[in-house]
Amino acid sequence: MAHPTHRSYLLRLECPQCKRVFDPHQLQTFCPDCRGPLVSYYDLESVRRHTDRDALAARPRGMWRWAELLPVFDPAKIVSLGEGDSPLLCLPRLGAHIGMPHLLLKDESLNPTGSFKARGLAGAISKAHELGVERVIIPTAGNAGGAMAAYASRAGMQAAVYMPKDTPQANMLETRITGAEVHLVDGLISDAAALAGARARDEGWFDVSTFKEPYRLEGKKVMGLEIAESLGWQLPDVILYPTGGGTGLVGIWKALKELEALGWLETKSFPRMVAVQADGCAPVVKAFEENADTCQMWQGAQTLASGLRVPKSFADRLILETLRESGGTAVAVSDSDILAAQRHLATAEGLFVAPEGAATLAALQILQRRQWVRPDERVLLLNTGTGLKYLESSFPEEFAH
Amino acid sequence: MAHPTHRSYLLRLECPQCKRVFDPHQLQTFCPDCRGPLVSYYDLESVRRHTDRDALAARPRGMWRWAELLPVFDPAKIVSLGEGDSPLLCLPRLGAHIGMPHLLLKDESLNPTGSFKARGLAGAISKAHELGVERVIIPTAGNAGGAMAAYASRAGMQAAVYMPKDTPQANMLETRITGAEVHLVDGLISDAAALAGARARDEGWFDVSTFKEPYRLEGKKVMGLEIAESLGWQLPDVILYPTGGGTGLVGIWKALKELEALGWLETKSFPRMVAVQADGCAPVVKAFEENADTCQMWQGAQTLASGLRVPKSFADRLILETLRESGGTAVAVSDSDILAAQRHLATAEGLFVAPEGAATLAALQILQRRQWVRPDERVLLLNTGTGLKYLESSFPEEFAH
Ligand SMILES: [Zn+2]
Ligand SMILES: [Zn+2]
Repeated sequence: MAHPTHRSYLLRLECPQCKRVFDPHQLQTFCPDCRGPLVSYYDLESVRRHTDRDALAARPRGMWRWAELLPVFDPAKIVSLGEGDSPLLCLPRLGAHIGMPHLLLKDESLNPTGSFKARGLAGAISKAHELGVERVIIPTAGNAGGAMAAYASRAGMQAAVYMPKDTPQANMLETRITGAEVHLVDGLISDAAALAGARARDEGWFDVSTFKEPYRLEGKKVMGLEIAESLGWQLPDVILYPTGGGTGLVGIWKALKELEALGWLETKSFPRMVAVQADGCAPVVKAFEENADTCQMWQGAQTLASGLRVPKSFADRLILETLRESGGTAVAVSDSDILAAQRHLATAEGLFVAPEGAATLAALQILQRRQWVRPDERVLLLNTGTGLKYLESSFPEEFAH
Repeated sequence: MAHPTHRSYLLRLECPQCKRVFDPHQLQTFCPDCRGPLVSYYDLESVRRHTDRDALAARPRGMWRWAELLPVFDPAKIVSLGEGDSPLLCLPRLGAHIGMPHLLLKDESLNPTGSFKARGLAGAISKAHELGVERVIIPTAGNAGGAMAAYASRAGMQAAVYMPKDTPQANMLETRITGAEVHLVDGLISDAAALAGARARDEGWFDVSTFKEPYRLEGKKVMGLEIAESLGWQLPDVILYPTGGGTGLVGIWKALKELEALGWLETKSFPRMVAVQADGCAPVVKAFEENADTCQMWQGAQTLASGLRVPKSFADRLILETLRESGGTAVAVSDSDILAAQRHLATAEGLFVAPEGAATLAALQILQRRQWVRPDERVLLLNTGTGLKYLESSFPEEFAH
C-alpha cells in the first residue's frame, strides 16, 4: 500500500531521429525539430548493480514495483490507483478450438478505469505532478480520457478531455463523474487533438496526448516487463497488439530491450510484434505493406473498435520500426470478425473483452490461414480493456432504436 | 501464470448451529437440519508448520496464492481468470475533506467481471469443477450472475442465471455474451431464487446461491487475508462493508480469525465490522437494532444499489453474529446520499465506484455524526465493484426517457 521507496534511474530523454538530448528534470513534450516523440534512457548498468529481477518480483503488487525503470524521481509524487500486474492467462479451451494450444492473453481490463490506458496515464500524470503541472488536457478516442481524468482527480489537478461525440457513453460518463471538463467533438480524435492542442497553447494547459509527452510510453512499457516476468523471463513467439496510438506496442518492445540489456531474460529469442488494426482505419497496415517509414492520414476512419479510430499516430515511425525490427507484421480485421471473436472469447474462456482486444483473435485467425504462425508457437493476445465499456458496439441489436 | 502447486489444508465442513460435520470431498450444499450455511475448517496447525506468511506474499499475484487456506484439493482444477490482489488505496484527499485522515479503500473493481463477486464464484466454481459438476445455476441481484457465467465458461460448464428484470443492463449483457441462459424475473432476487431453486431440483443443476454452497465464502474470505497483508499484518479499526448476501462480511471476519490462529497477525486488535445497507432494503440494520438473531424478509425492497436489494440473506445469523462479536454496527443510507458519495469519491480521488461501494462512504459520514468513529481511526471502505456497470443508476438524468 505504501509508495515504494526505490529510486528512478532515468538519465535523459532523447529524440531517436536527431539524437538531441532533453533533461528529464524539466517538463518536456516532443522534439521541436523533428516533431517526433522523445524516448527515456535509464542507467541500466546501475540498476543491474543495485537490484535484481527477484527483488522486484517480491515487492507489493502494481506497476510501481518497477520504480527503477520508471521516470518519477520522488516516490511521494507517484499518483497511483493500483494499476499494473494484470493477469496473464492461458487459454486452453479457445486454443484447442482454433488449433493454437499455447495461446495466452494478457488481460488489461483488470486496471483502474478498466483499461490499459491507466498505465500510461499513471506514468504521465505522476511525472507531470512531480514537475508541478496543475492543469492537464487530452484528446481521446475513448479510454484515455477517462483514465486521465481519474489520475488528474487523484492528483488534485484540473482536467479537460476532448472526445469524438460518438465515443462510447461509458467513456463520457466515467470522465464527467470525476469533475473533468468533457468536450464532445464533431469529428475524430485528430479533430479533438487539434482543438485540445490549441486550447493548451492558448491557456497553458499541459497536453498529455499520446507520445506528445514522453511518459505514457514508460507506463505502458511495464506490460512488457510483466509479460517476461510472468513467463519466467522467457518470451512469447508472437505478440498481437491492437494498435491505435501504438504506445503499448512500442513500449513492450522497449521493455524487452531494457530487460535484455539488464541481463534478466532467459532467452535470446524475441517475439514478432503484430500491429492489429480495423479494416476501416488501417494506416499502419497500409504503410507496412507499402514499406513506408511513416503513415499517411487515413481518410474516413470508421470502426466499432473506437480505440482503433486513430487516423495517424504521432509515433508512426517508431511503430513501423518495431514491426520490422521484430520480424512482425500488421493485419487489418473487419468489424464483423471483431464481434465474432469477442463472442468466441466469452463463450470459450469467460472473457468479455473490448473490441480492440477481440481484434487480436480475429487477426490471429488470419495469420493462421496465411501460415504466418505455426500451431506450436506461443502466441500472446493483448486485451486492452473491458467489454463493459462497449455495450453499444458489442450488442448493436440491443441499442438499435 | 502457472497454477500454484500448493495444497489445500481443508479438513471438514461444519454447521455452526448443530455442529454436524460434512465431508469436503463430496458435493455439499447447506445443513439440511438447520437450513443454514456450512463453514470450512482447515488444519491451521499444519499450515503454520509447512509455510509462513512471507512465502505466500512472494508467490505470483492472485487469490490462489492462498491455496493452503482455500478449498480446492487438486490445483489442476482451479478455475481462474486472475481474480484477487485488488489494490488497497490510501484516500488522503477525501480523508482530509471529511476529517478522517487515515481513510483507506479496497478497490474490488479490479477483478474479472469488475466486481468482488469474481472471488466467491472462482471459489465455488473451482470446487464444483473438482467435484465433477457440469451445470450450474444461480439467482442474482446483479454482479454474481455475470461472474458465475464467466467462470462457468472458463470451466466448460453449462450455466443458467435468474435475475430481476430491472437488473442493470451491463449485468444482463455480460452474462448473455458468455452463452449462459439468462432468465429475467418479474420480482426481486428472492423471487429469482425460488425459480432457480425449483429448476435446480427438477433438472439436477448445482445451485451456487450465496451460502447455499460453502465455497463462495472461502473465495470472498481472501479479501480479509489481503487486507491484513497489505497493512503489514496490522488491521484497520473499522471496516465498512456493503451488505446484501453478506458473504464478504462474514468471510473477512473468518479470514482474520484464521490469521490469528496461524499467529500471522501483528495485532490483537480486531476491526469493528459495519454492515452498510440502503434505506429501501435494510433487513440487517433492522434486526441489529432490534437485537434479533435473524432477519425478517424486507417488504418492498427498493434501492438504486442493486446489489443491496436482498430482502433476507441466507446467512443472516452469521452476519448478525459477526457485527456483535466485532463490536460493530449496521447503518442504512439513502439513495441520494449514495449518489453524492459516489461523486465525492470520483472528484476527490478519481474512483468511479459502484453504488454499493459509495454507500460505505455515506455510512461513514453518518457514523462520524454519531461520533461512533473517531477522527484518528483507520477506517476501511470496501468498494465492491466498478461504477461502469451502473451507468443507468449513477446518471439517472442521462437515462430518463
Ligand atoms: Zn529530433
Ligand atoms: Zn445444522
